[in-house]
Amino acid sequence: MVQSSPTPSSVSERPYRAWLRCIDGCPGEHSLDSCFYRCPTCDGLLEVAHDLEALRARSPAAWMKLFDERYKRTTWPYGSGVWGKKEWVAPSIDNDSVVSLDEGGTNLFWAERYGRALGLDDLWVKQCGNSHTGSFKDLGMTVLVSVVNHMIRTGKRPIRAVVCASTGDTSASLAAYCAVAGIPAVVLLPRGKISVAQMVQPMTNGATVLALDTDFDGCMAIVQRLAQEPGIYLANSVNPLRLEGQKTISIEIVQQFDWEVPDWIVIPGGNLGNVSALGAGFLMMLELGLISKLPRIAVAQAAAA
Amino acid sequence: MVQSSPTPSSVSERPYRAWLRCIDGCPGEHSLDSCFYRCPTCDGLLEVAHDLEALRARSPAAWMKLFDERYKRTTWPYGSGVWGKKEWVAPSIDNDSVVSLDEGGTNLFWAERYGRALGLDDLWVKQCGNSHTGSFKDLGMTVLVSVVNHMIRTGKRPIRAVVCASTGDTSASLAAYCAVAGIPAVVLLPRGKISVAQMVQPMTNGATVLALDTDFDGCMAIVQRLAQEPGIYLANSVNPLRLEGQKTISIEIVQQFDWEVPDWIVIPGGNLGNVSALGAGFLMMLELGLISKLPRIAVAQAAAA
Repeated sequence: MVQSSPTPSSVSERPYRAWLRCIDGCPGEHSLDSCFYRCPTCDGLLEVAHDLEALRARSPAAWMKLFDERYKRTTWPYGSGVWGKKEWVAPSIDNDSVVSLDEGGTNLFWAERYGRALGLDDLWVKQCGNSHTGSFKDLGMTVLVSVVNHMIRTGKRPIRAVVCASTGDTSASLAAYCAVAGIPAVVLLPRGKISVAQMVQPMTNGATVLALDTDFDGCMAIVQRLAQEPGIYLANSVNPLRLEGQKTISIEIVQQFDWEVPDWIVIPGGNLGNVSALGAGFLMMLELGLISKLPRIAVAQAAAA
Repeated sequence: MVQSSPTPSSVSERPYRAWLRCIDGCPGEHSLDSCFYRCPTCDGLLEVAHDLEALRARSPAAWMKLFDERYKRTTWPYGSGVWGKKEWVAPSIDNDSVVSLDEGGTNLFWAERYGRALGLDDLWVKQCGNSHTGSFKDLGMTVLVSVVNHMIRTGKRPIRAVVCASTGDTSASLAAYCAVAGIPAVVLLPRGKISVAQMVQPMTNGATVLALDTDFDGCMAIVQRLAQEPGIYLANSVNPLRLEGQKTISIEIVQQFDWEVPDWIVIPGGNLGNVSALGAGFLMMLELGLISKLPRIAVAQAAAA
């Protein structure tokens, strides 16, 4: 059928380029295909940088038109909320390597009564977790697993498995996307500290699930060691590729408001990865002229977190 | 015998008309606003009928273009997978009365590896449950609650509450949609026979949840009696409005295949409501010329069901 054969990327989408760099400014451009997750110089975090000059060659109106034309349509892989913004996310991945479950495009709904209760006329809720595995982690995992799939398919890196420590959503998402691509996934979790529901998702998606007699940090320490082995790739959130997918949340919010920027966005904190991604998306839209102001962002954290 | 005439279309953009009729052909056209759920003559099931002549005045190509232009976009309420097909579903409901949570537009994904395991090149899975409450019931409930909201807003019927017997998805969906509209929802369920998770959804959405010392059929019998009270509206699946929303599954599948009809569709049985809706959607597309053949449909039922 029409959708079954992914179409090859057209030449016109290839001038864009992204790379990894140190967030603290150490020199060096590292390939998105790198199998390290921290700056080789200072051991700080890495982030994905984009060739903004190249992206600027397309006008803001043309980007908005392109994103609107692709939104939830059937041309692979652009119907995904993430891959509809592919040039801004991971431009060098060929479309056949993309591992997507149509993530994104989630409801942004008007919480009319709740807003009224709070004295707000215009309160909206973005349901980012209305996704294949039930969490927004799918937005980032589609990018990470697509990059791994790209490495495997092009023969650049002989990745044998993708590994993460997780007590829930990350492992569910990793397992689902690896299952689609046929890439082995390994999940390390603290024995006895997660619910059956949290274990069922990675197991039913065929991940190797190892319950260890330690806590989350203990699992994480082992994952870090494992990821130094050749061919073992790390999927925890220190990996900056995931933020590139989550970044599309901000673009999609603005798109769903017909390219108007909301005044405020309230977002859960967690390890601050998602709010970093949100901010990165807004800054990129501002840099490229799609918006002319930034929203205020409020981070909410549960008292017990 | 209660019998009212179908709601006339008052606005020029809405020349379309739908009404309730007996599935066994008893004479009589009943308004969608009726507060009875079985044929007043033979007590058989009712179904929604559409003025196909009026719908035929728009060409198949024009319908497909209209549905594509609306799909997942921001014009209320047409971004919903159900309300994007509003003229085919419940044409007389004014847009302000629609109670929608952006249902539909769910992923249709290529189950490549599973298909290969079964010897099928082209196996796709439609994730109808990727929805606000996590089940396809949202597709029908948006129609039912919108019709109730329309009755209340227009002053046609003083509906005080919508009631259902349910052990799970139906009550979750009813409670969520009633919460959006501020309409009281009442859920009857068999005490001790449902999980905490099944009770949490209607309760957190503010429904009145009554756990009764009986089984599902016992709850259903009480619901039927309640629904004879003035102002109490019945949301169980005997109500034909829900199928009108679920009918959009078939239109959306074809739309997602760029208007090609699949050879086979496999669908769970349950009480056969959903497969009836699926069939109705295909027949309507055939009648109106959007497709030129029907798929084969296979109904799967769990051995224990």
